[in-house]
Amino acid sequence: MIDFRPVFFIVGVLSSTFGPLLLICALVDLGAGHRDWQTFVMVAMLVMGFGSLLATANWGAPLKLSLRQGFMLTVISWVVLSLIGALPLYFSEYDISFTDAVFEAVSGVTTTGSTVLTGLDDMAPGLLLWRATLNWVGGLGVIAMGIVLLPFLRISGMQLFKMESSDVGNKATARVVVMVRQIALLYIGCTAVSIMLLTMGGVSFLDAVCHSFAAIATGGLSTHDASIGWFDSRYVEGVLMVGMLVGSLTFPLMIQAFHGRPQLLFDDPQVKFYLKLIVVVVFIISAWRVIATEAGLVDIVWGTSFNVISIISTTGFASENYLAWGHFPEAMFLMITLVGGCTGSTSGGIKAFRIYMLLKVMQNQLLTRLQPHRVLLVTYGERTIDDDVLRSIGAFVWMTLMVIVLFTPVISATGVDFVTALSSVMQAIANVGPGIGAQIGPAGNYAGLSDVAKWVLAFLMLLGRLEIVVVLVVLTPAYWSR
Amino acid sequence: MIDFRPVFFIVGVLSSTFGPLLLICALVDLGAGHRDWQTFVMVAMLVMGFGSLLATANWGAPLKLSLRQGFMLTVISWVVLSLIGALPLYFSEYDISFTDAVFEAVSGVTTTGSTVLTGLDDMAPGLLLWRATLNWVGGLGVIAMGIVLLPFLRISGMQLFKMESSDVGNKATARVVVMVRQIALLYIGCTAVSIMLLTMGGVSFLDAVCHSFAAIATGGLSTHDASIGWFDSRYVEGVLMVGMLVGSLTFPLMIQAFHGRPQLLFDDPQVKFYLKLIVVVVFIISAWRVIATEAGLVDIVWGTSFNVISIISTTGFASENYLAWGHFPEAMFLMITLVGGCTGSTSGGIKAFRIYMLLKVMQNQLLTRLQPHRVLLVTYGERTIDDDVLRSIGAFVWMTLMVIVLFTPVISATGVDFVTALSSVMQAIANVGPGIGAQIGPAGNYAGLSDVAKWVLAFLMLLGRLEIVVVLVVLTPAYWSR
Ligand SMILES: [K+]
Ligand SMILES: [K+]
Repeated sequence: MIDFRPVFFIVGVLSSTFGPLLLICALVDLGAGHRDWQTFVMVAMLVMGFGSLLATANWGAPLKLSLRQGFMLTVISWVVLSLIGALPLYFSEYDISFTDAVFEAVSGVTTTGSTVLTGLDDMAPGLLLWRATLNWVGGLGVIAMGIVLLPFLRISGMQLFKMESSDVGNKATARVVVMVRQIALLYIGCTAVSIMLLTMGGVSFLDAVCHSFAAIATGGLSTHDASIGWFDSRYVEGVLMVGMLVGSLTFPLMIQAFHGRPQLLFDDPQVKFYLKLIVVVVFIISAWRVIATEAGLVDIVWGTSFNVISIISTTGFASENYLAWGHFPEAMFLMITLVGGCTGSTSGGIKAFRIYMLLKVMQNQLLTRLQPHRVLLVTYGERTIDDDVLRSIGAFVWMTLMVIVLFTPVISATGVDFVTALSSVMQAIANVGPGIGAQIGPAGNYAGLSDVAKWVLAFLMLLGRLEIVVVLVVLTPAYWSR
Repeated sequence: MIDFRPVFFIVGVLSSTFGPLLLICALVDLGAGHRDWQTFVMVAMLVMGFGSLLATANWGAPLKLSLRQGFMLTVISWVVLSLIGALPLYFSEYDISFTDAVFEAVSGVTTTGSTVLTGLDDMAPGLLLWRATLNWVGGLGVIAMGIVLLPFLRISGMQLFKMESSDVGNKATARVVVMVRQIALLYIGCTAVSIMLLTMGGVSFLDAVCHSFAAIATGGLSTHDASIGWFDSRYVEGVLMVGMLVGSLTFPLMIQAFHGRPQLLFDDPQVKFYLKLIVVVVFIISAWRVIATEAGLVDIVWGTSFNVISIISTTGFASENYLAWGHFPEAMFLMITLVGGCTGSTSGGIKAFRIYMLLKVMQNQLLTRLQPHRVLLVTYGERTIDDDVLRSIGAFVWMTLMVIVLFTPVISATGVDFVTALSSVMQAIANVGPGIGAQIGPAGNYAGLSDVAKWVLAFLMLLGRLEIVVVLVVLTPAYWSR
């Protein structure tokens, strides 16, 4: 049997940390005179009780994780934190079904940001803050997982980003702890700056906090049914655009930039590729809109930039209903759904790193067809990439494709049209948020889907967040046999 | 400079062979008393003149092709044969624009089978035979290319199917010639059997010939606007179902089966995987229809089998409008559009071989995550597959995905909805034929698309037929520089 004690211990500790966050939401609701403050206090006590019980019961087990334990920890912590996230929603004053509560919480924690709730504008502040908090905590969790766990588990090419060749020594562990602490500080700092800037721009404090949380986490949950369109403000859009961009860049490299080495960030092949890609997509859609429509140039470029950055960074904010721009932008928006930001960020999707590497493999293939005996190494910056990394990347993209092929018909079978089914699966696996079409597009939401569809999509959000492979490994018979 | 003389010589010879085929169409129209017999005679003379001129002008160059020449030959011959195929359509009595003629011819030669023509039922027999002939000749060309050229060019994993480790010796060449001759005989034989069976079932000789041509070539061009639905006959559907299946199996292995080694065919991993996949898809769609609709069980299983085999084999015949079956079958039909048959067949698409190999890579990835130092070899039957093959396969699938991502918005920009755009690109790159939606689905055709869309789709059909890489290699600067 696999020893799950250290896994349960860590999950217990992580669960407990939700307690203070829940109490803050309780205070906010208490201040606003909303009865749900009692719900938050109750859930906080439940969670802290459960968490400390789990932690103490599994106290004392060695904390050095094996690979098997690492996989289980990754899966279990996201599932448990999602379920905890669902409790305040389910027990709140609002009439939220268990399915809807779980969907919303999974969507929050995985930083997907699809919502099944309407009437957000009139909702109690505590619950709005709780949703945003799920985004924010989830975002930090994604970065930590991408930096510490995925390289250790050698998932989807992330083994390239192992910080040490030997990852057992105490020195290495210490370095990881320092790195994670610095990233947490940077994450908190960026969020604080964004809150400050938004407040200065006249945004209410609650809105400033919630949208800053959702932007840096590339989560995209808003406190308004009309998302960012509600503010109708270039200033707010500008601040959030920067927030989304920052959230989708490689955090370890931003740390380096803060330490006086900005060239490590801006010379990084992935970061360069990512920023160029955004510029190209914005240019193409803007050019089409200038030719095909009558809107003003500045409006076009600004609106295109905001919504393209929102989708490519996998945030999912909408400043307007971009699907109304025409057939071509609509197709472009679906096609960029899978792209995603950089590795080591809060972003989902295939991510710039993998797209860049696959383009390199493709280029090498073309170059070596005419010279059968030439072997071209695949490089990332100055590093040569070995076969395991390349196969992992290829397998990841292939699995993403398979998930789309297998699950689009499943969602279709729940009674929605093809585009809704396809785009809902794509946005879920890439943790984006809005899909295509009137129902689940930027002007709609997921309330109208059947319960089956909601559970399937919630599963896909977790699957995507865990880079698919983590979940599949745990599901193999080999994982459970010795 | 690259010496193109041997390329031009072969293209000249290939072009000339179209002469007799055109004259047969002329005879058919003459027999039917249709004025277009003159068109066919004129084009036949033109083509034979052009072909022999090209051949004689480049006579005497050494016929041993270099890699560069091999790439150019592959691209040029498909383009030239497509253009020749367009001439009788363009110059015919019917009002067919140059764009439509080229689209129809490319669709024919690449065995895609998308049509822009309507009123087929009343069309002159010569022209109908000509369209079917393009399918049939194209199909044979596809097998030959897949067996001889693609392994030589090391394209998309086909290097695995090189017949000899040294491919320069005279013995090897002789063996290739024998193989191609046997395959041509088998191809002609299967076609003849199909014609005989259809005629015995009461189908007119012209219809029997045209549909046998289109089935074995997995081309799918019909002589009726309603495709196979026109016959309303289980017998005809049964014969064509077998024809499509045979066309999508590996021809070299079918030769082996004829030589008394059927186990080589039926134990082949790809063939087994392909047949199982068909059974699974038919079962799933049938099960859904049994539960969700009221049609009879036999009708459901038969209709599902015919149309699923038609799409997975990339033929594109339709016995009924399967898109009317519901959301779930619709999504399934789009998702199986890219699958394709076996390598060494007339089929298009990703093909069972590559899907099988990618699933194996994926499986190995999962198995080795828990054992970092274990190296699992990827095998195909008893053969170990090297990295170049795996990377080629990965690059091919990745390129297919990129083509879909890049060209769906392009087709959208011509003014069609997203599903039409997406499915038109997918069916073109996989050489399938029908798309999804009322316009280009099994009950529609491509007549209503804009000229730009038709040219783009014709390009994509050729790109897909040439496994993408062949075209891209010729477009690299490295190809043209020394
Ligand atoms: K998101
Ligand atoms: K076809």
